Amino acid sequence: MKKDDYLPRKILDVLKGVHGETPVSLHEPRFIGNEWEYLKDCLDSTYVSSVGKYVDTFESKLSEITQSKYAIAVVNGTAALHLALIIAGIKRGEEVLVPSLTFVATVNAISYCDATPHFVDADENHLGIDTKKLTTYLKDTTEIISGNCVNKMSGKIIRAIIPMHVFGHPSDIEGLLKIAKDFNLILIEDAAESIGSFYKNKHTGTFGLMGTLSFNGNKTITTGGGGAIITNDIKIAKLAKHLSTTAKIQHRWKFEHDEIGYNYRMPNINAALGCAQLEKLPFILKNKRALFEKYKKSFKDVSGIHLLCEPSYCSSNYWLNTLVFQDGFEVFLEDTLEITNKCGYMTRPIWTPIHLLKPYKHYPRMDLQSTEKLAKKIINIPSGLPLE
Amino acid sequence: MKKDDYLPRKILDVLKGVHGETPVSLHEPRFIGNEWEYLKDCLDSTYVSSVGKYVDTFESKLSEITQSKYAIAVVNGTAALHLALIIAGIKRGEEVLVPSLTFVATVNAISYCDATPHFVDADENHLGIDTKKLTTYLKDTTEIISGNCVNKMSGKIIRAIIPMHVFGHPSDIEGLLKIAKDFNLILIEDAAESIGSFYKNKHTGTFGLMGTLSFNGNKTITTGGGGAIITNDIKIAKLAKHLSTTAKIQHRWKFEHDEIGYNYRMPNINAALGCAQLEKLPFILKNKRALFEKYKKSFKDVSGIHLLCEPSYCSSNYWLNTLVFQDGFEVFLEDTLEITNKCGYMTRPIWTPIHLLKPYKHYPRMDLQSTEKLAKKIINIPSGLPLE
Repeated sequence: MKKDDYLPRKILDVLKGVHGETPVSLHEPRFIGNEWEYLKDCLDSTYVSSVGKYVDTFESKLSEITQSKYAIAVVNGTAALHLALIIAGIKRGEEVLVPSLTFVATVNAISYCDATPHFVDADENHLGIDTKKLTTYLKDTTEIISGNCVNKMSGKIIRAIIPMHVFGHPSDIEGLLKIAKDFNLILIEDAAESIGSFYKNKHTGTFGLMGTLSFNGNKTITTGGGGAIITNDIKIAKLAKHLSTTAKIQHRWKFEHDEIGYNYRMPNINAALGCAQLEKLPFILKNKRALFEKYKKSFKDVSGIHLLCEPSYCSSNYWLNTLVFQDGFEVFLEDTLEITNKCGYMTRPIWTPIHLLKPYKHYPRMDLQSTEKLAKKIINIPSGLPLE
Repeated sequence: MKKDDYLPRKILDVLKGVHGETPVSLHEPRFIGNEWEYLKDCLDSTYVSSVGKYVDTFESKLSEITQSKYAIAVVNGTAALHLALIIAGIKRGEEVLVPSLTFVATVNAISYCDATPHFVDADENHLGIDTKKLTTYLKDTTEIISGNCVNKMSGKIIRAIIPMHVFGHPSDIEGLLKIAKDFNLILIEDAAESIGSFYKNKHTGTFGLMGTLSFNGNKTITTGGGGAIITNDIKIAKLAKHLSTTAKIQHRWKFEHDEIGYNYRMPNINAALGCAQLEKLPFILKNKRALFEKYKKSFKDVSGIHLLCEPSYCSSNYWLNTLVFQDGFEVFLEDTLEITNKCGYMTRPIWTPIHLLKPYKHYPRMDLQSTEKLAKKIINIPSGLPLE
């Protein structure tokens, strides 16, 4: 092989061409709007904590953008998932279908409820749940007893399914809705990575009973740390707000709490940042798409890899641009990580599949061949807004 | 009774005299230091999330102030308590001694571990645990079996005790340490309200295995939302940081997690606020003490109530100044709340005792006579820094 044909070098050259000067992070936030002004206003008002106008405004804006009737802002995406599962009534010992190819938080939230994650396989096209394969699996291994989907192996009820829209690409939502209906499963969408991503013009996270969002520092928009539950059900919305604010009953001065609640409300200062960020979301999405187009053009002639594209019926936020190494080229993945990071272009592999992690080795799972295969052939490349 | 003798009116008059112009909140934060500068620096650096220099600086400062070797900053005081209990190894079904006269978070954290709160009574002098009464109770109702303190009634192990330093006043820490030793209990101090409070020159929260702090918006210093674990044990400190950051193993790019972790790390933007606030802590404490002295002088001649003072061997941060209605005068409490709040001076009663709340009605408890009595005779009065 000539030096010029060396795949990691070719990938590096594209990153150099697209980004120029280093270091280039994977995804750093950009504060180009009213962040400053809103934070100052927040300090001046002294309302920096869990009560304040920015939390309410942030929720309204989220609701508007996602076209879900209600949004409840919380401290982070993990808290949003945990709360969603509690509200969905997931009980100790019940099973919850979840992709193994996800960030660990999706699965941790299930553990917090003392429920059992039941791992399902990924689809190579969008990296979300392989609905075709899952349908066959559920037909073979479950039966409906008194309206509940029961795992014939474990004898336990499978109560819910939590798809995750990986790197911002919408999963096969219609397939998921059909599975949820056919097997009587509660659908909660982990849309942590997919604000601004639409499936046939409907925002991700709005198809199930609830959707959850994340605004961590590396996300499309950030609140420092933050998350939200979105839902169209007013009862769920009210309960989410109640439980996230220690289940305190509204009263002028009395401290009474009618349930075991949580301290999950997003502080006003984080919401202030979020309000400014959301105002720039259209601009950010436009520029992220432009970056993807740039990558598409630049990687066109690089053989051995392909750039992951949104499914044709979707609009992705392209949170993290993704290179998939073709069969036989996976051997170059480690070297690519090494050389690009060394040269100041931050790249990373996809997550280690959760069923391979120590705390999750002994949980039920279907065949996870695609997941294990994909885990060895995917890297993310710098995807933040260009600085100019 | 003459109108001038009407206790609620006399209390209102003192508040008017001390504060003047309304509205006066119970405890609003004051941003008079580098808050502004640090937040701007935080935005400019783009490090607003869970990695950043302010989180590290905040932890160092906390460690310095409390003279505990390590401090681990988390999203709030509830998360700090939850994590502390997990690290202490509290297991499902074990009992944890906890005051009923506390904010609900202390008890919720026990529930999150599927452990059982076991309510203990309060001491009228400092509102913390009545150690004398508790010692007798434990002697009568428990026995040590294989080194474990076993509740003879329930047959369950009592694993830990969590005192709370109410309104900033240190509890009887020596009494608590003796109980912890004699009955083989893990001591975790809920110091959510007592940053800057010392028991015989040693900071609250540093006597047990771990202490927990809170920096909610209404606290002595605030980070918007925030909390911390303090400890002298390096293993505990490392584990706390590990578990609060999703138990991710340090690696340049790999995503591996070796335990079920949490998303509890304090974001950098909140820590930035906290750094500025901590710089002003001596000033804030001095002024809070001055406010207490003002109250002391002003309430001197008001009969029917007394202002709660720090125990002689302690230095309290006087987080919330507290009026205790004397026996026979409790009938004026509700009216006092009504009239003061109506006139723009925010006051509030102490918490409804936790054992009386719906979710905690059916848990083990000792006789809680003092708790129930105190709950009817305590109000907090405005305690923030004066605005001039």
